[in-house]
Amino acid sequence: MDDNIERVYRYIDQSKEKFLEYLVRLCRQPSISAQGIGLQETAQVLSDMMADAGISTTLLPIAGTDSPVVRGELKGKSPYTLLFYNHYDVQPAEPLEEWLSPPFEPRIEGDLVFARGVSDNKGNIVARLAAIEAYKSVFGSFPIGIRFLIEGEEEIGSPHLREFLRSHGDLFKSDVCLWEGSNVSWDGRLNIILGVKGILCVELEATGPETDTHSSWATVLPNPIWRLAWALGTLKGPDEHILIDGFYDDVRPPTEAELKAVYSLPLEEGQELSAGTVRLLDVAQGREYWRRHLFEPTCNVCGIVSGYTGAGVKTIVPKVARAKLDFRLVPDQRPDDLLHKLRRHLDRHGFSDVKISDSIEGEPAARTPLDSPFVRQVADTAEEVYGKPPIIMPTMAATGPMAFIREALNTPVADTGVGYPDSRIHAPNENIRIDDFILGAKHVAAIIHRLGIEAQTK
Amino acid sequence: MDDNIERVYRYIDQSKEKFLEYLVRLCRQPSISAQGIGLQETAQVLSDMMADAGISTTLLPIAGTDSPVVRGELKGKSPYTLLFYNHYDVQPAEPLEEWLSPPFEPRIEGDLVFARGVSDNKGNIVARLAAIEAYKSVFGSFPIGIRFLIEGEEEIGSPHLREFLRSHGDLFKSDVCLWEGSNVSWDGRLNIILGVKGILCVELEATGPETDTHSSWATVLPNPIWRLAWALGTLKGPDEHILIDGFYDDVRPPTEAELKAVYSLPLEEGQELSAGTVRLLDVAQGREYWRRHLFEPTCNVCGIVSGYTGAGVKTIVPKVARAKLDFRLVPDQRPDDLLHKLRRHLDRHGFSDVKISDSIEGEPAARTPLDSPFVRQVADTAEEVYGKPPIIMPTMAATGPMAFIREALNTPVADTGVGYPDSRIHAPNENIRIDDFILGAKHVAAIIHRLGIEAQTK
Repeated sequence: MDDNIERVYRYIDQSKEKFLEYLVRLCRQPSISAQGIGLQETAQVLSDMMADAGISTTLLPIAGTDSPVVRGELKGKSPYTLLFYNHYDVQPAEPLEEWLSPPFEPRIEGDLVFARGVSDNKGNIVARLAAIEAYKSVFGSFPIGIRFLIEGEEEIGSPHLREFLRSHGDLFKSDVCLWEGSNVSWDGRLNIILGVKGILCVELEATGPETDTHSSWATVLPNPIWRLAWALGTLKGPDEHILIDGFYDDVRPPTEAELKAVYSLPLEEGQELSAGTVRLLDVAQGREYWRRHLFEPTCNVCGIVSGYTGAGVKTIVPKVARAKLDFRLVPDQRPDDLLHKLRRHLDRHGFSDVKISDSIEGEPAARTPLDSPFVRQVADTAEEVYGKPPIIMPTMAATGPMAFIREALNTPVADTGVGYPDSRIHAPNENIRIDDFILGAKHVAAIIHRLGIEAQTK
Repeated sequence: MDDNIERVYRYIDQSKEKFLEYLVRLCRQPSISAQGIGLQETAQVLSDMMADAGISTTLLPIAGTDSPVVRGELKGKSPYTLLFYNHYDVQPAEPLEEWLSPPFEPRIEGDLVFARGVSDNKGNIVARLAAIEAYKSVFGSFPIGIRFLIEGEEEIGSPHLREFLRSHGDLFKSDVCLWEGSNVSWDGRLNIILGVKGILCVELEATGPETDTHSSWATVLPNPIWRLAWALGTLKGPDEHILIDGFYDDVRPPTEAELKAVYSLPLEEGQELSAGTVRLLDVAQGREYWRRHLFEPTCNVCGIVSGYTGAGVKTIVPKVARAKLDFRLVPDQRPDDLLHKLRRHLDRHGFSDVKISDSIEGEPAARTPLDSPFVRQVADTAEEVYGKPPIIMPTMAATGPMAFIREALNTPVADTGVGYPDSRIHAPNENIRIDDFILGAKHVAAIIHRLGIEAQTK
């Protein structure tokens, strides 16, 4: 059997140029969900690529959004089924001036491919399609069934996915799920990630005078920047402890096994991961780094704007100030409960004038247990393909709609993928290494093969 | 003698259309000091208009700026001299979309003239030129000497005026000074203002990671918006008390006479002045309104910006955050001293990482005593021209380089002018009423006449 899968690996190696062409084709499509750009077009291009790979593909429109779900299906010899969850939408490309080449004109330079979305998440989609094409070319058929769920609203918090899965869950029923995409460590080990944090995004708005007003009136007029700064100051203090009343009430402590897994992670690795920055918070030093990063919830301000921000001086009391916040949640915090607590907190602390916008986003956290058999299958194949034992992380610090999948399909979920520590997801000059892309395709093929062997022997 | 000045008033009434043409001509010239637009051109147009009015005019260039000082001189029978201080620069016109007609295409609609700068300060310049032309036409000569100092950097804090007056002060030596321009109250009384607040403008900057970074790293990375919000929170609290160590040390309490003058101001008037806003700070209610507005220093945030401020959600830890602050100062606070105290305060409170930009602006406050004879002369003539006793304000809440004039020339200074409570200075749709413009010209003529009579009888 090992001989056979080696043939698939060789096919992938020999098809590198072709698979890179697929990647360039998909990354050339802007698909920015936050800005409503190019979503249907990208779903169609993706659907065509999947059909070319022999996958039975349908676009499932969702009321209230331009982003259809792309569903794919391949029959297998066994009824055992693997689900791929991915997303074809990407983050906004701003700030554009910091890109060394245009974000939607993929650039190959040496071993690197640069484009918005090349790591998060199009590189992973294409690596999976490459694995399918290679496996089918070598073996002609699949030992297990394979399904694809590729959505187009992940980067805005998958606002329709939960409802969609409640009504369409049967179309995606599976036994195990491979998540959208993790990365390879600097020393060449695959990160296998078993959970996500949840998220709540809100916009706070404070208002001042009816119009921007000469700042001599700052004596008697409320200034919305001050209102916002003071309100923010009640949410978190310089010691990083979050002060929203009841914020930590539902935080489930990590298990012994989870803590042990996290304390064994290489420290340097995480510090490299934090985007080249050497300055870390005091509370994140040493052994606290990974525990804090993976098991603590956050209260973060992503953006703030008010008044005159151009060159020179314009002395005004501005009429409005706005701040965008995101909270990363851990089990068992709930976004809707936090929204309620935030409103109550602001009211109790004298900031009932600070509005919370309606445009919010909410997903709970989710984790697959460390002792799930699927974790062993993914880890064993990773060691075969990457030549080193993988790093197993109980959760990522980032967010995805994993809870919706676990709620609707009740499958174990593991995350593997083609990124690396300098992939710069959500940032300018997002990129992947071609070697990781090829290894990722081989690993997916190996997982299909291994699941097939175990399904036969049951 | 009263008969004579009535002839000047009649001349002004009869020349209304011509004087409005002068006003349109000057307001058509953009002269935005903050953006370096049209300053030399406007100085030249103004100089030509002054020469046309028979004033001996020179442009005095200043090293380091495109804005020359326009100097004007008229000989008088007596050596007693009146100085007009004005400025030909204006505030930026943004936000342009809120103007009902283009800011530099003056529009006359009924009794109103709309244009950027028509109130602050070009209407006042032209009313003074109109008074000169009318007085000269009726009497052929002037009983006192008259000088003009018209600068082009007032709206950016007159950064060169202090040094300029140290070297060129002799060219402007005078006995009394009329300041650039106040306004008429809703009930038709002239506001005579005897002082200004000082100002210090700074930009605060906090830095986070080297590049905008995915907000899952908010667990371990410092966020510059939080740094800035917390630093701002140490400067002023929701009770509006300013917390910078030593901030109030040099505040000179108002005199009994100043307090009395301020407590007698009509309350509704001030509330109208605050740009149509009905919601006032709790600490500015009732009789506290005027005391607070005129005698309290401020700590105001004019603008703030960081991270993603577009539509939708982009979850990042931003790399940099900036806030623009202006402090309005009262006697005897000093801008350079406050800058030092602000740095020390931030350092002491754990914010040595928050930078204060170099691009600062500083002017101290200034006040002319209520019992100066010049105040009586200006007030008596105001009652004659406006038909009602004027309102005498010990100071305005806004800023001007009055301290530089008082330091260099040691003259009493009184502010009169052609604005009204809805003039919208520094804001879209700046405007004046034509009646106020005509009354302002008459009042200037009356002051010249009255100073002449008193100079003769000395």
